Amino acid sequence: MRVEGPRYTERFGAVRINEVQKVLELDSGRARELTPYENVAVQKIEEGAIKDFEEKMVIVIPTKDEKLKLLEGVISGIPHECLILVVSNSQRKRIDRFKMEQDTLRQYCHFTRRQAYLVHQKDPVLAKALAGAGYNHIIDQDGLVRDGKAEGMIAAIFIAMMMKKDYIGFIDADNFSPGAVWEYVKCYAAGFYMSRSPYAMIRIIWRYKPKFGEGVYFRKWGRVSEVTNRCMNSLISIRTGFETDIVKTSNAGEHAMSLKLAGLLSYASRFAVEPQELISIFEDFGGVMPMACKTAAKHGIEIFQIETRNPHLHEDRGTEHLKDMLLPGLATIYHSRLCEKETKEKVLAELLQQNAINPGEEPPMPQISPPPKNIDIQKFTKVMGRHMESCSALEGK
Amino acid sequence: MRVEGPRYTERFGAVRINEVQKVLELDSGRARELTPYENVAVQKIEEGAIKDFEEKMVIVIPTKDEKLKLLEGVISGIPHECLILVVSNSQRKRIDRFKMEQDTLRQYCHFTRRQAYLVHQKDPVLAKALAGAGYNHIIDQDGLVRDGKAEGMIAAIFIAMMMKKDYIGFIDADNFSPGAVWEYVKCYAAGFYMSRSPYAMIRIIWRYKPKFGEGVYFRKWGRVSEVTNRCMNSLISIRTGFETDIVKTSNAGEHAMSLKLAGLLSYASRFAVEPQELISIFEDFGGVMPMACKTAAKHGIEIFQIETRNPHLHEDRGTEHLKDMLLPGLATIYHSRLCEKETKEKVLAELLQQNAINPGEEPPMPQISPPPKNIDIQKFTKVMGRHMESCSALEGK
Repeated sequence: MRVEGPRYTERFGAVRINEVQKVLELDSGRARELTPYENVAVQKIEEGAIKDFEEKMVIVIPTKDEKLKLLEGVISGIPHECLILVVSNSQRKRIDRFKMEQDTLRQYCHFTRRQAYLVHQKDPVLAKALAGAGYNHIIDQDGLVRDGKAEGMIAAIFIAMMMKKDYIGFIDADNFSPGAVWEYVKCYAAGFYMSRSPYAMIRIIWRYKPKFGEGVYFRKWGRVSEVTNRCMNSLISIRTGFETDIVKTSNAGEHAMSLKLAGLLSYASRFAVEPQELISIFEDFGGVMPMACKTAAKHGIEIFQIETRNPHLHEDRGTEHLKDMLLPGLATIYHSRLCEKETKEKVLAELLQQNAINPGEEPPMPQISPPPKNIDIQKFTKVMGRHMESCSALEGK
Repeated sequence: MRVEGPRYTERFGAVRINEVQKVLELDSGRARELTPYENVAVQKIEEGAIKDFEEKMVIVIPTKDEKLKLLEGVISGIPHECLILVVSNSQRKRIDRFKMEQDTLRQYCHFTRRQAYLVHQKDPVLAKALAGAGYNHIIDQDGLVRDGKAEGMIAAIFIAMMMKKDYIGFIDADNFSPGAVWEYVKCYAAGFYMSRSPYAMIRIIWRYKPKFGEGVYFRKWGRVSEVTNRCMNSLISIRTGFETDIVKTSNAGEHAMSLKLAGLLSYASRFAVEPQELISIFEDFGGVMPMACKTAAKHGIEIFQIETRNPHLHEDRGTEHLKDMLLPGLATIYHSRLCEKETKEKVLAELLQQNAINPGEEPPMPQISPPPKNIDIQKFTKVMGRHMESCSALEGK
């Protein structure tokens, strides 16, 4: 893979936010000696180096009643060295869609000889393991893990820690294009390779998101992203005193973290989870408040934003979905301890304009789950460890 | 890459047509020892083995006034080890689109340190080289190469021979998805790897071709393909006496050949070129007529049809384009020396139903260019060889 080197980096306390880096070549060929000029502006990252990171990575696919063909397509794009973890919240009553996912995954893993795990979000053992380890924050009144993609992601972070992986990456199950999925993972690995800190986050920005109407319009910016990025950048600009538009990936569903970093962050519910990760980093390491972890602050937190070659093609959820996403995302910015008057006013103005709130209203306070770092992973493993065997999709070896 | 092994093979004289083989895994990870069951039904093809074939392959992109962003996207998906050859028939007057292609390609090659060649179809040196070597069949009255994608492909075959490559693959310039392009090339290499004959052809069939209307419909069969395949299979069935539906790729624009095979085939103009390649193989090696080349007949001609994981997304040319494609394709079948009464009637019925001909009419005789094998490649090289330097997109080294 060949990707632009980080040409410009915005600093915010101990946080380094790298400008968007474009992928130039999906497949940069065999490892060979560099020629002059090579790796000046553009980095060639050898396949061997990428695989070194893939081996230490769990790819998490949160899914809920997604079309099986799309789910299988997504799986088929994930490089073989990564461990696959599907966290499903699909229905089990009437039609047992979870069972269908299990069958699909088992058949796939049988023929490709690869390991994958499928865990149901409402698995009582999972909830028991979380509670037993002292992390009740995503447990509902019925004693099971709450609904929501974010809750599934948090559970996956614990499972990845239990499996002693170093990196965790997320990919949505509704992607049409296995080739794009493959590229996301390569970008994750490339980002971790480029990072000078073990506390790193890679966020994907797609080149285009084609809209099919009369003809094709290659849209670059989603409406929600545009607004959320603007408010996020306002928050940084006012704190640093230099206006910036560095953040282009506030809502990046496709993103990855080192587990070291994942353990330090706090997580919002549902569609607020991705912007909240940034807010959490800025609050804890932006230098405005006390540093949340001295070791991490010393290394610095490094954020990469990588622009893929592939367009993003996925299920169109319509405009309802867009409104659902805008409000919780902006709420995390609004209620951040870093958010001052000017950014608050910007957020309110945007929400009013989109009819997401009424005049005089404030966005609702986001529901935040605290950092996983304090959990007793031994206790979690004790309950969940052996149970994972039953979640394995590859029978025998 | 992991792909189904050839489970069923239809034989037609010296021709082996393999049933469609599905890609299971885009990226099958590092080379390691096989576990039991591995490579029984599914073949793992190691990246090193794939790259061995990519190194000997030219990827040809025929283009005509295509959007530059799409062209650059296609280029970015081609694995680095392949040599890129863009054969452009874009306009040079008023707006010099060829110059714009040159600039795009040079910028791209500069940053990725890879070699690519850009040749204009109307380049007088190209026509001179072809004529000098004794291949006048694609030269127009103005002394230049005729318009048409097929003519560009034939010219590319000569250039590939001159460059002493072993394999040639074609990819259309209007593809939206660089990841799909990447997969096409991997499939080409995988096919050549699996082939037991040096006379091999790989034809791509896509998993889906999404149609975007109210929602998305994942279409599998194009209308033209369906009809052309039916008639092509009728031609084989009646000759072998066993009804078959083995051919699923009559119109595969994405296909590759060993240059040994490419030298033996005859080529039809425009959209008839892909079905005519099959007709040419069946006529020359199907055993009904005398074998056209004893060495090739001894090795056998092997045809692979590989189903990609990625959906096919490209510029929609509308229904006009579909009619343009149906008639010439079916004409090659109709006018084949192998075509008997029953298949002829089938072709006429299909064309009538689609309003492509009037009652009582026959499809027009296709314009066929003879096999390139008899050309004096030394003479071609003498004229074209040094000229290629000026077509190079990578300045310096």
